[in-house]
Amino acid sequence: MSIRLPYLLFLGDAPDPLAAKVAFGIRDWRPENCVGQLRMAGCQADLGLTDMSLERALAAGARTLVVGVANRGGLIPETWVSALQAGLEAGLDLAAGLHNRLADVPALAVTAAGLGRQIHDVRQPERTYDVADGLPRSGKRLLTVGTDCSCGKMYTALALEKAMRARGMDADFRATGQTGILITGEGVSIDAVVADFISGAVEAHAPANDPEHWDLVEGQGSLFHVSFAGVSTGLLHGAQADALVLCHEPTRTHMRGLPHYPLPDLETCMAANLRVARLTNPAARFVGVSINTAKLSDQAAADCLSEIESRTGLPAVDAVRTGVERIVDALA
Amino acid sequence: MSIRLPYLLFLGDAPDPLAAKVAFGIRDWRPENCVGQLRMAGCQADLGLTDMSLERALAAGARTLVVGVANRGGLIPETWVSALQAGLEAGLDLAAGLHNRLADVPALAVTAAGLGRQIHDVRQPERTYDVADGLPRSGKRLLTVGTDCSCGKMYTALALEKAMRARGMDADFRATGQTGILITGEGVSIDAVVADFISGAVEAHAPANDPEHWDLVEGQGSLFHVSFAGVSTGLLHGAQADALVLCHEPTRTHMRGLPHYPLPDLETCMAANLRVARLTNPAARFVGVSINTAKLSDQAAADCLSEIESRTGLPAVDAVRTGVERIVDALA
Repeated sequence: MSIRLPYLLFLGDAPDPLAAKVAFGIRDWRPENCVGQLRMAGCQADLGLTDMSLERALAAGARTLVVGVANRGGLIPETWVSALQAGLEAGLDLAAGLHNRLADVPALAVTAAGLGRQIHDVRQPERTYDVADGLPRSGKRLLTVGTDCSCGKMYTALALEKAMRARGMDADFRATGQTGILITGEGVSIDAVVADFISGAVEAHAPANDPEHWDLVEGQGSLFHVSFAGVSTGLLHGAQADALVLCHEPTRTHMRGLPHYPLPDLETCMAANLRVARLTNPAARFVGVSINTAKLSDQAAADCLSEIESRTGLPAVDAVRTGVERIVDALA
Repeated sequence: MSIRLPYLLFLGDAPDPLAAKVAFGIRDWRPENCVGQLRMAGCQADLGLTDMSLERALAAGARTLVVGVANRGGLIPETWVSALQAGLEAGLDLAAGLHNRLADVPALAVTAAGLGRQIHDVRQPERTYDVADGLPRSGKRLLTVGTDCSCGKMYTALALEKAMRARGMDADFRATGQTGILITGEGVSIDAVVADFISGAVEAHAPANDPEHWDLVEGQGSLFHVSFAGVSTGLLHGAQADALVLCHEPTRTHMRGLPHYPLPDLETCMAANLRVARLTNPAARFVGVSINTAKLSDQAAADCLSEIESRTGLPAVDAVRTGVERIVDALA
């Protein structure tokens, strides 16, 4: 999957900024890929980018109209369909990470086919994969792993990419979920791959590279989340990670969506990840811990990071509050 | 997926008995489901069942024509298509576990649709699944796990079912691969499920049951096989196994298809499986070891079983040579 850059970001009639969080993610992490925003009447989100007509966006170089807003209730509103169809007719491809596929909307499918445009529904893999071979490959790889789902694995990997590139290090974020794919324009939604090919898909999307190059692979799920641990296991094996960063949200009282499952303690979680990772890379090690302290006061956040740092002997950061520089120090 | 019973077994023009091993598996484990065999000119395999025309098989009650022979090179020969189409026209459904789908053969798809017959390509899941919830469920479950792929996990689970039923125990084999599905008429080819739903699919196919009922879940892959460990992990979590049986082939020098990966030792493999299994069933334990000693002499096999039994403290059996009674003793 490779989406043509740059993007015009479609915000539709987003009822609030949260509904457009995918668009905000793209703007925050890849501003150079965004020529402007396209908003419909009533839109309550604003990326601070130039509002553009389709014609103006095309003149500014836009190649793909990206749905950066989540739809409510699963249905794609008719008003969006008209706007997206106009995008196809004007000369743009479409990309989205919605549960419902744009390509399943007849008007869009027919228009795209007739005009030779691409529709990228990034939740669905666009290609097939080989099973993993586990052969050692060159280049370095870091994988973010978590005590749970949705605790900062994508954000941490993107923050590491930004900080490493700022130091002149050769580093690429490797997306494994739909938001990450829309941010970078490529990747694989790893939880939508057929089970036999989880680790093979990771091998394909974080391939051999220069010896000093770092792939920063976005983790998914958790070895301790009973719904998704198979995906997390395949990611660990496929990534052949040299370095692992543990991501954690300290106020969570149970595994996401599973009130009957407590979170693992950090040490248990790290030991389990190392055991799995070392099957394909015996040198795998943890280089840091990334804590999402958004729900804590400044003092509580500082105490939390300090306590985890002394417990684990690893740099403990919050990718937003403190930045990830101390983890980059450990890698450099 | 539920395939209508009983079967007429299609052997085509099998060049040798090995090519018909799926048919032999069905005959061996579910003779009561087989009304006869259908062979084409030149067939070199013989199940010892009555050769039947389509009409005679229908009169004998057959409901599904099952392709029990592997095709060479992936293509489904034109001669098979004619024979299978005649089966549809005579009144039978079709079922197969081939890499290439029968439903993708236009003549078969059109005929089946026109006549209202079912075509079961059991490598592809026929339904969608929820993600696993990991909630404890009633009934007992045993899962066969392996040091590697293809070391006796299906055979052991089927042998346990037979031995347990012979003792009057309430036990059902639960198929997770195409051969097992064709043997029992139901199940899910777990490695073909979308990655997010591995453990959820196992929860669906080995659901809550009577407290004394045993589901004997067919394992897949190995936690130590880098291509497939995600599948094995999801199986362990979804099965919530009370009992595990370790399957092993002692002459293997490396992981199947991965010459650069050695096999794990039994103790390491058992410890890893217990750690994963105990996330959803803290009481999970090993109850036996099933060794495929086919390549060993009688003496070497006896020595091997004795050595493993003293090392592990568990009953060590060969499902063919010694039978699995001693594992059933441990369960009863």
